[in-house]
Amino acid sequence: MKEIVIKNISIGDELLIGQVINTNAAWLGEHLSSAGFQLDSALTIGDSERAILDAFNACMDADLVLVTGGLGPTADDITKPTVCKFFDTELVFCQAAYDNVVSLFKRRGFQMSERNRSQAMLPKACEYIPNTYGTAPCMWLEKKGVVFAFMPGVPFEMKGIFTDELLPRIKQRFHAVPYEKRVVMTTGIGESFLADKIKDWEEALPPFLSLAYLPQHGMVRLRLSGRHEDAVLLHETLDREIAKLTALIPEYIFAMQDQPIERTVFDLLINKGMTFASAESCTGGNIAHVITLIPGSSDVFKGTAVTYATPMKTKVLGVPAEVIEKHGVVSQEVVERMATGVRDLMEADFGVATTGVAGPSGGTEETPVGTVWIGVASSKGVVSKCFNFGKDRENVINRATIMAYEMLRQQLI
Amino acid sequence: MKEIVIKNISIGDELLIGQVINTNAAWLGEHLSSAGFQLDSALTIGDSERAILDAFNACMDADLVLVTGGLGPTADDITKPTVCKFFDTELVFCQAAYDNVVSLFKRRGFQMSERNRSQAMLPKACEYIPNTYGTAPCMWLEKKGVVFAFMPGVPFEMKGIFTDELLPRIKQRFHAVPYEKRVVMTTGIGESFLADKIKDWEEALPPFLSLAYLPQHGMVRLRLSGRHEDAVLLHETLDREIAKLTALIPEYIFAMQDQPIERTVFDLLINKGMTFASAESCTGGNIAHVITLIPGSSDVFKGTAVTYATPMKTKVLGVPAEVIEKHGVVSQEVVERMATGVRDLMEADFGVATTGVAGPSGGTEETPVGTVWIGVASSKGVVSKCFNFGKDRENVINRATIMAYEMLRQQLI
Repeated sequence: MKEIVIKNISIGDELLIGQVINTNAAWLGEHLSSAGFQLDSALTIGDSERAILDAFNACMDADLVLVTGGLGPTADDITKPTVCKFFDTELVFCQAAYDNVVSLFKRRGFQMSERNRSQAMLPKACEYIPNTYGTAPCMWLEKKGVVFAFMPGVPFEMKGIFTDELLPRIKQRFHAVPYEKRVVMTTGIGESFLADKIKDWEEALPPFLSLAYLPQHGMVRLRLSGRHEDAVLLHETLDREIAKLTALIPEYIFAMQDQPIERTVFDLLINKGMTFASAESCTGGNIAHVITLIPGSSDVFKGTAVTYATPMKTKVLGVPAEVIEKHGVVSQEVVERMATGVRDLMEADFGVATTGVAGPSGGTEETPVGTVWIGVASSKGVVSKCFNFGKDRENVINRATIMAYEMLRQQLI
Repeated sequence: MKEIVIKNISIGDELLIGQVINTNAAWLGEHLSSAGFQLDSALTIGDSERAILDAFNACMDADLVLVTGGLGPTADDITKPTVCKFFDTELVFCQAAYDNVVSLFKRRGFQMSERNRSQAMLPKACEYIPNTYGTAPCMWLEKKGVVFAFMPGVPFEMKGIFTDELLPRIKQRFHAVPYEKRVVMTTGIGESFLADKIKDWEEALPPFLSLAYLPQHGMVRLRLSGRHEDAVLLHETLDREIAKLTALIPEYIFAMQDQPIERTVFDLLINKGMTFASAESCTGGNIAHVITLIPGSSDVFKGTAVTYATPMKTKVLGVPAEVIEKHGVVSQEVVERMATGVRDLMEADFGVATTGVAGPSGGTEETPVGTVWIGVASSKGVVSKCFNFGKDRENVINRATIMAYEMLRQQLI
């Protein structure tokens, strides 16, 4: 069966003047791939009737066109009238869309404006697909055998609708070529060294598989993926190759699927019925923030004390003032007292602590910007280590957070 | 003078499978705008000869085509041979390009491979533009009056070459129209209500100005921008219109430039020499996380107690167990006690607290998923409010964080 051609169009002036980066196209590309489809091209255009009509016409050689953006209630959102022109139809009132807008406002406890009523005006020729994430509608239209699906541009709405509603319809309508990917998460080794270690294996991979290196914040994600009509062969080949890869670099792997390291720690803690708490200085609450993004994290996470002001380290965590005085705030002694202090305070199995200089200022010759002490306290005592994570503030915070989880993981395995 | 049409083409499979988000297009759009040009469209395609030729042909109605990507030394980079096909030319050795590659390797202290020599093979018809940021060349070609400029896809190389070499050439060759934009940040009002309030003003805007609504997580950014041959007139008109807009919605504006709300709160606190601390349940440390991303935040931020486990609300923040028992963890009484508790504990001027159900589970009929109580304590007492932020966990956390800062801002003005 022939491979279908899928194109994406993103509509919005804000994307072309650089005010907003188009992340929708990449997300759609990734999720289409996973489902056995391939994105052929992604076009970004402004809120102009001419540009939209030109783009639609240029997609008449595709099978499926996924359009995002321009569906809001304000004057700059002109996608709907332009859709009517292209599909030679008119806007009519859609009761189901109206009910959806009403219930959304009701749920949020907001008053509805007359303008929101206009969001229930839809092209007569379209199939209405409910959007339970927001007030803009999702629409499905066809012209000469080409399917056009319209979604709002707000990323979380687009993702929700695509997953819940559109992807099932696309799968029903079009033929997918089995696709499978495996992700191996590594930490503690740089990209180039990793590449050298697995070079022979990589070069011997079968042609329908491809490997990608995705480095970020002191981790490297390895993605091995492929497409093959024979799904069983694809699956078994991946099993075999991943087993070979794992044997080459066992000490650097923290997960055999695409997940952040805090997820691995979460799973380990759940399995052991254990808990942790954090005392954060330079990470400023990020250790807490990332774990609490995981539903159910309250089962393993007791809480955090962000003691940004130095006296709070004494008052909240019980780090003696003379220890801070003698060794400095960014020191092994302080991070270890913070780790045991928060473990006691929060009555947790593990206490994780950070103290460092995130920058851009505040560094000294002895403790330059990027210096971070991380400590993990347990019933067996405290382990601590000093790092330098460079001079970019956000990067220091992210890398310190990941390393804190890596040190906690080492205690758990 | 007629406005020129500029199109962007990004080449690379990694952009279409979602492995890498295309940030080059937005960056080019922003920098073209600031220089008085407009990006008409941005197309992303894969490393395929057919796709590249189709894209080039579709750009023959443009004046300038900016192409990025596919110029590397590996087998999947097929832009150069395809360029030869399109421009009916052949690859020849370019001494200047070769010297550039050699000097780059020398500067970095790396050994050069034979593969890198191929990077000095350029289409005979092209004008070579040196890339001092990397080994891939920058090229300038013309066909029937349409200029094609090719740059590497690596963002920092592309940015460097565009700024140093291409933009000056573009300015010399094409006519720029002065452009200016203003951003007004609002919160506490939905997009539709905002649009109603400023409808008359918006409709009376001069035709060379346009307004965009950019809603995100409970805020709406308003962008007023325009292009006009008379830069002074443009500037003065923007001044006048922004003044009118400000007068219409003063209570909803938290910044007159594109910045997050925590930045506004940070500035207000610095000006007043005041501090705050947070007690976070459902926001899980995100209030602390976003403020600590700002360099110098230790001057205004004392710390956070993330009391994820209910007993910690009593132990760390001093919320009486019987209050929690009687009213429930997600209640006005508890959030107010948390706010005053953390204010006392951290010795701050303001205490900000959140307690809610971020979901996806944990909701009840009385307090469904998305319910969040937010409280702000000061020397004058506590204010608190209940919200429903919908059912997406990450969105609930983000919206609650922004609203907490908005409530703190209200106390500060």
